[in-house]
Amino acid sequence: MPLRFAERADEAYSFPLTIGHLLDAALTTSGDQEIVYRDQLRFTYRELRQRIGRLASLLSDLGADEGMTIGVMDWDSHRYLEAYFAIPMMGAVLQTVNVRLSPQQIAYTLNHASAEILLVHRDFFPLIDAILPALPGVKAIVAIMDGTDGPLPAYAKGEYEALSAAASPDFPFRDFDENAIATTFYTTGTTGNPKGVAFSHRQLVLHTLACNAPFGVTRQRGLGVEDVYMPLTPMFHVHAWGVPYIATMLGLKQVYPGRYEPGMILKLRAQEGVSFSHCVPTILQMLLAGADQTGADLSDWFMIIGGAALTPALYREARRKGMELVAGYGMSETAPTLSIARRRRGEEAGLEADATTLTMAGVPVPLVSARIVGEGMADRPADGEARGELVIRAPWLTQSYTGDPEASQALWRGGWLHTQDVASIDAQGHIQIRDRLKDVIKTGGEWICSLSIEELIAGVEGVAEVAVIGVPDARWGERPIAVAVARPDSAPTLEAVNAPLERAVETGRISRYALLDRLELVEAMPRTSVGKVDKKALRARFAIPAAEMAMAVKA
Amino acid sequence: MPLRFAERADEAYSFPLTIGHLLDAALTTSGDQEIVYRDQLRFTYRELRQRIGRLASLLSDLGADEGMTIGVMDWDSHRYLEAYFAIPMMGAVLQTVNVRLSPQQIAYTLNHASAEILLVHRDFFPLIDAILPALPGVKAIVAIMDGTDGPLPAYAKGEYEALSAAASPDFPFRDFDENAIATTFYTTGTTGNPKGVAFSHRQLVLHTLACNAPFGVTRQRGLGVEDVYMPLTPMFHVHAWGVPYIATMLGLKQVYPGRYEPGMILKLRAQEGVSFSHCVPTILQMLLAGADQTGADLSDWFMIIGGAALTPALYREARRKGMELVAGYGMSETAPTLSIARRRRGEEAGLEADATTLTMAGVPVPLVSARIVGEGMADRPADGEARGELVIRAPWLTQSYTGDPEASQALWRGGWLHTQDVASIDAQGHIQIRDRLKDVIKTGGEWICSLSIEELIAGVEGVAEVAVIGVPDARWGERPIAVAVARPDSAPTLEAVNAPLERAVETGRISRYALLDRLELVEAMPRTSVGKVDKKALRARFAIPAAEMAMAVKA
Repeated sequence: MPLRFAERADEAYSFPLTIGHLLDAALTTSGDQEIVYRDQLRFTYRELRQRIGRLASLLSDLGADEGMTIGVMDWDSHRYLEAYFAIPMMGAVLQTVNVRLSPQQIAYTLNHASAEILLVHRDFFPLIDAILPALPGVKAIVAIMDGTDGPLPAYAKGEYEALSAAASPDFPFRDFDENAIATTFYTTGTTGNPKGVAFSHRQLVLHTLACNAPFGVTRQRGLGVEDVYMPLTPMFHVHAWGVPYIATMLGLKQVYPGRYEPGMILKLRAQEGVSFSHCVPTILQMLLAGADQTGADLSDWFMIIGGAALTPALYREARRKGMELVAGYGMSETAPTLSIARRRRGEEAGLEADATTLTMAGVPVPLVSARIVGEGMADRPADGEARGELVIRAPWLTQSYTGDPEASQALWRGGWLHTQDVASIDAQGHIQIRDRLKDVIKTGGEWICSLSIEELIAGVEGVAEVAVIGVPDARWGERPIAVAVARPDSAPTLEAVNAPLERAVETGRISRYALLDRLELVEAMPRTSVGKVDKKALRARFAIPAAEMAMAVKA
Repeated sequence: MPLRFAERADEAYSFPLTIGHLLDAALTTSGDQEIVYRDQLRFTYRELRQRIGRLASLLSDLGADEGMTIGVMDWDSHRYLEAYFAIPMMGAVLQTVNVRLSPQQIAYTLNHASAEILLVHRDFFPLIDAILPALPGVKAIVAIMDGTDGPLPAYAKGEYEALSAAASPDFPFRDFDENAIATTFYTTGTTGNPKGVAFSHRQLVLHTLACNAPFGVTRQRGLGVEDVYMPLTPMFHVHAWGVPYIATMLGLKQVYPGRYEPGMILKLRAQEGVSFSHCVPTILQMLLAGADQTGADLSDWFMIIGGAALTPALYREARRKGMELVAGYGMSETAPTLSIARRRRGEEAGLEADATTLTMAGVPVPLVSARIVGEGMADRPADGEARGELVIRAPWLTQSYTGDPEASQALWRGGWLHTQDVASIDAQGHIQIRDRLKDVIKTGGEWICSLSIEELIAGVEGVAEVAVIGVPDARWGERPIAVAVARPDSAPTLEAVNAPLERAVETGRISRYALLDRLELVEAMPRTSVGKVDKKALRARFAIPAAEMAMAVKA
């Protein structure tokens, strides 16, 4: 028999999962709740809704329409929050521009996304001056003066707050297909130009709903009606991990810190009672150092840490200051959240157990299917030991890299999104990221995890920082080498660096194939725009060219 | 410009919101977690998944297919949980049969839904004996012997556990359209036959995701990974309010109590560590009385109370026993949850404040749009005082009454679902139900709320129970009368019953039109199948026939 479908009353409302609907309950429960921007501005959710209407009206006056891409270049602000709603609610596409890319890359992403209107903070006027001639598709620019009175650049159609104040709050938003694109942004891949990803209204609404669930289920701390939220992840970075949408849906008080300055962040934390944030380990370290200098109280500040591994050492330091942390895991292609850490069932709160469990990548949030697979996408056992590539299904994964069918095909090979991360999963679903697949070194038919080798070397005297990479080898396919930054007045040797590896080989913890061939010392690690060690650059620098390699084999 | 849509990689997985996906994360995080049925059976989520496959296989062997309706007549059990998943996951329609209806009504609903296969607990064999001749569409019946050895009825194709054990766990579930109907059941309306409602996979998945959010956001208590769930709302009743789907999605330990017996419920609560339940006030009263008799410990048992108003007195009694309660609100047509109570922002926990705030109907859950409207669907102010009909939009509302376009049209008049409840909403979104619209009495152009009149009369000496109804009146349109059950050896008079009303008229609390015309004493209140006072029956009994009314006007 065919599937059955319900009849619909003529006037029955067919509810699309569009971003505007995230405001519905919030406006009922939290019309008088506050949104705060630094020490400059505060307004209520009722006013937020009006400001969203005004932004849509002013953009419409500038020619914005359904399907048009509108780029935002701003720090974390109430303006960005307004853009998160107004632009998608118009049926337009919000491009969250990664301002940390090079000017050439930024111009590339704006052109690739066909951005026609830009909202630009004054800090980026010099950048726009430099790239505007290369942006023939941009028809209008709104200047964000951020409370200052300076003259507008000649290319600006007006100033954000002034245009907004003059525009109508009553923009006629309409319902439309929930599969329409809401946002787009670019991720720095391993090769070539940045790659575009896009997310639909439906995907973002489902991400918002499902990623809220763990805040309740951890039970160690629910995100509550009394919580005050402040993002410490750039809003151009995968929707600040989607948390502004969650905080708005729940009607929480929100605080936006603008450009990240430790003094302002700690002041806002104290004055506004911020209790819930999220950031990368680098920002957490900055805040801990700031608190050391100023004596600021960080206690009862709950944070989700992602973007890079949260080390047990950093976790312990934050806990000693009274903070609560859990690690989260995801990527640009996944909107981003896939998993959030929580205690194991039956595990009591305790510093050492937490420093292990809560620094892992977490357990899958609802609706996330996570598998670890080996060759031919065969499942590896979920025993906490076996490793395989982590592959994912969820209702909010990018369906392609924009205009790049080949990379899209690789991303979705076999019907599962390939994270390119090597992970283990245990019986309670705790995912542990063991390595980046592209960092995995395959030598003599054996896989070597560079991350675990790096961990072993990290304790070697004189080593400040280390990266292990695979370099081509005519005989073994690839061989591991270490690139290290030495501590002042130190000069670690290959022998010293290999010593803990030899001990680990003896205890069977690693394969003998993992012993390093070379040690290279560098002044500083090259880093990607998001602060990760740029192993692609290291490989390019330290690989022996193929011609020389061929000679070495002959010799 | 047209809306923009993302390209899709050929192999990209297009994730449908189907019920089977609620199991994905749970099987990763909670494969070894337990499902318990009374003191008879316990198994893990891994086995649950196998049992779901077995149930689908056995139904398929009996001729089940996509689009077929399969009815379940059982108490709250692991079998029902299996049916909640297996039947919709096959693309078939689960009919949750309300076994409290009359035999004629049950036969009507099975025929109306075109049920072809039934799963029937032995307690309902006599019922089936009585109605089977009236069920020509039923092709197969599976008997649920519930651990007993008695002979199967002649019409049974086999026994649930035996057939299940013999069936394959590897049923080839496939993806399909998320808008396919997953469940159907019948609601006793105010007139005529029970009305069918249906819910799609998409609707139930969204209900599950959104209704989980308040468990975190209340902060007074999140539903946590250590929680043990036991339903105390029949599973034929609006999916036991959808909580079995939430508990399964979160991978919680679940306990199913079978037929409700206070001794078994309290034993399971103690032995299995049940911490989270939901029920109607009647069941809560039964448990409180059971604890009084046995000394059972109810402390730290969290419950959502719905289906009827939670009175502050009952709330206080449960709190004194250490329970935590919040009221919830919804209806059959809304899957059911629309709102869940929580403390106001800035309100500390405290018995008296909680007895007010947490017994109201709660605040809208995410994605619920709630309005109160007057004539012409004009908005009434959200000031906590103004009253209007509560109308709703949400992504999980039934789109029609099956095969009843007229009632469907009335339900969705103006594009909003009409709850027929009169409510106020305050500035923090707290909904307070003031009356059922059909219980509202309109006399001389004035609305009278029967609920508030009943509250005034409830304290009158000698009155055990009272219902106020409107009866037709040639002069005033309608006039209010009271129907009361007297306490033993009491005989309350109309004068006594009107006394508190007269005082309330004097203080301006009610209109003088609310003074009662008549008092009728009855032995016991007629009740609907769900235990509510059957005002329809009262009106039919105490209305003066139109002919007599006409004579009275003439006289």
